[in-house]
Amino acid sequence: MESKSNYKVEEPEATMWSRKAWALLSTVRSQSPLIQCITNFVSMDLMANTLLSAGASPAMLHTLEELTDFTPQVHALCVNVGTLSAGWLPAMKLAAELAHKSGKPWVLDPVAAGASGFRLKACLELVELKPTVIRGNGSEIIALAKASVEPTKGVDSSHKSTDAVESAMSLAQASGAIVAVSGAVDIVTDGNRVVGAHNGVAMMTKITATGCSVTALIAAFVSVDQSHVLEATASALSVFGIAGEMGMKMANGPASLRMHLIDSLYGIDEACVLSHAKITSLS
Amino acid sequence: MESKSNYKVEEPEATMWSRKAWALLSTVRSQSPLIQCITNFVSMDLMANTLLSAGASPAMLHTLEELTDFTPQVHALCVNVGTLSAGWLPAMKLAAELAHKSGKPWVLDPVAAGASGFRLKACLELVELKPTVIRGNGSEIIALAKASVEPTKGVDSSHKSTDAVESAMSLAQASGAIVAVSGAVDIVTDGNRVVGAHNGVAMMTKITATGCSVTALIAAFVSVDQSHVLEATASALSVFGIAGEMGMKMANGPASLRMHLIDSLYGIDEACVLSHAKITSLS
Amino acid sequence: MESKSNYKVEEPEATMWSRKAWALLSTVRSQSPLIQCITNFVSMDLMANTLLSAGASPAMLHTLEELTDFTPQVHALCVNVGTLSAGWLPAMKLAAELAHKSGKPWVLDPVAAGASGFRLKACLELVELKPTVIRGNGSEIIALAKASVEPTKGVDSSHKSTDAVESAMSLAQASGAIVAVSGAVDIVTDGNRVVGAHNGVAMMTKITATGCSVTALIAAFVSVDQSHVLEATASALSVFGIAGEMGMKMANGPASLRMHLIDSLYGIDEACVLSHAKITSLS
Repeated sequence: MESKSNYKVEEPEATMWSRKAWALLSTVRSQSPLIQCITNFVSMDLMANTLLSAGASPAMLHTLEELTDFTPQVHALCVNVGTLSAGWLPAMKLAAELAHKSGKPWVLDPVAAGASGFRLKACLELVELKPTVIRGNGSEIIALAKASVEPTKGVDSSHKSTDAVESAMSLAQASGAIVAVSGAVDIVTDGNRVVGAHNGVAMMTKITATGCSVTALIAAFVSVDQSHVLEATASALSVFGIAGEMGMKMANGPASLRMHLIDSLYGIDEACVLSHAKITSLS
Repeated sequence: MESKSNYKVEEPEATMWSRKAWALLSTVRSQSPLIQCITNFVSMDLMANTLLSAGASPAMLHTLEELTDFTPQVHALCVNVGTLSAGWLPAMKLAAELAHKSGKPWVLDPVAAGASGFRLKACLELVELKPTVIRGNGSEIIALAKASVEPTKGVDSSHKSTDAVESAMSLAQASGAIVAVSGAVDIVTDGNRVVGAHNGVAMMTKITATGCSVTALIAAFVSVDQSHVLEATASALSVFGIAGEMGMKMANGPASLRMHLIDSLYGIDEACVLSHAKITSLS
Repeated sequence: MESKSNYKVEEPEATMWSRKAWALLSTVRSQSPLIQCITNFVSMDLMANTLLSAGASPAMLHTLEELTDFTPQVHALCVNVGTLSAGWLPAMKLAAELAHKSGKPWVLDPVAAGASGFRLKACLELVELKPTVIRGNGSEIIALAKASVEPTKGVDSSHKSTDAVESAMSLAQASGAIVAVSGAVDIVTDGNRVVGAHNGVAMMTKITATGCSVTALIAAFVSVDQSHVLEATASALSVFGIAGEMGMKMANGPASLRMHLIDSLYGIDEACVLSHAKITSLS
């Protein structure tokens, strides 16, 4: 907050955000943080390649017996419940606890949170383990917020997109996490401030696991600047979106976009981030 | 059948089939049916991307505890036994039962049906749960038909490809399912009629999970026209094959074909389907 | 060894190696060996596509109940512990035993061998089941060698790359396996001879599962020439590296390299292998 005020004297907010996004990507590239991912089967390939292309080091390791040795050594943890099962849930919880205990950030992706009672309960249990960031789409965040903040109300998926902002703020306040909502504009909030990341292209929603992958990228960005979690989250969303915009210029459909997005994330340079990042304060 | 007779007065059979294929693809695009996939680990990425590119909405959800809440809400179910395990089989069965009970179509892909006694038994148990469509390659359908129709004979994999048509017809009659056999020509039968879909290119067999993915596409097509399952199955096979033909024009090998196939499936338009679909009655 | 001496009279060592690499690739293409892969979730897609592009036939089958029926029928087995779990380990062991008993080669990829006590123990148990080849990166081979050869010393990951050669030789001698260490130069040793495969490009390390995939390719090459395991291993590493070099000429980043690598592996011809293979004796 202070630095924001200071910067305002010299440069507009947009420039400050762009510089922050570039600084974080550069740090990820130079430090190559080790990011443990306990994620769904669908996303593993793209998520690992997203982290590698951004300069981070992915570790897809989910086995209960290994977590005590391994999780305290990683720089951040990403937990994604996409193909949740009763067998994997204890490992997700233990890894979250170990990350929290070791002072490492961990990020939750509550995929399809409202799809079943089992899944919603699992997501709520994970939220209680103090995720640093929660990122989902509007329906997921609304489902989680309703169940988390107002447990008697049940899940209602027929909300307008503006409701997602309120839900995100409620969830952030109740959980202590930074909450991000993906959409045409990505929203990031700590419960008070609301920031929008305006990058990305619509066709990214036609590629499976792009949402999962940006959650892992958030983990990487947060791992290199734990004292500015909201900024790191917005920066990761913006940088991934810029890679999508760059990729879209060469794409003929979702599969070529997927390829060019990853190539672009690998090759993106300072000038590109500074000229394309669009992050703004919405409150 | 009636509409077929009516059409015949005005236009040749080939045109009728092409129009049907285009009509179904258009409906999938406009209705975006939710397709639950309980599938093997190898195919999850390509299957989800195939469904997305065709305009459907994939849900890779396989956990026993979630099925009662979730499966009745989907528009179709795809069950694929590729990386079968004892742990997943009960969920495959329960999902199939729930789909059947809810009047939702479900499609079985009996990958490597004859590879082990365990797998063949599992496939036979799934066939008893009334799949709407069964799609496999020649060896798989022959193995399944032999075991299903003539249980004392055992599996013999040394059959000629013409045997697959007879096996498919027997299996269709015994199971009540539409049976599709992938090959140089894809065969679809209800046990009486036999239809051939003549699209696709040989290099598609050099890309893992193309067969699995077209099975999921069949589920999407059938979900939007449950009263014409045979036609929807042949249409899905033809449309996927056309996407392969279009992709092949730009491909330099299997990996670029995979990319261009998905891009083509996303971009394919009416003129292309009408001019390229090759579906014919073989009986 | 004899043939090597004989060849030396007529042609330089480099030519002999190139001819060997091409001969093995040609044999894989013509025999299409069936390679069973019990591998991590991240690598399944790329590994299956690597095998298909090289002309082999992949079978991703990991279920305990199927192994007695299936494993004796395959031409080689690849076991990769990347996403190891207590549930999968018994199948890895039984498949290894069945392969060994049936006289079929099997190849071990000890991914992240030193990441946890559980994983290191599992890897050591697998090494005792007589793998034909062990392939890993420097850290993995060092971790495995230290624990295998000098069990009281524990794991030390701070070794120089030259240590990996010594570790590989120790591990080869202790286990009876051919040991390969991937790196800027890939090293292959039987404990006495040391051979270097000098193909590949650095960007291949930015694509997830390239290491896993080349291990499966080694299984395919070894399956068609079991009497020359060291040569087959070096040849597979070289051919995969050449495909990477060819792909790199067309690539703009890791994702397009991945595509062009697979396309190149599919299309690579005799002239290309003969002119690009760089395999040399290092001892």
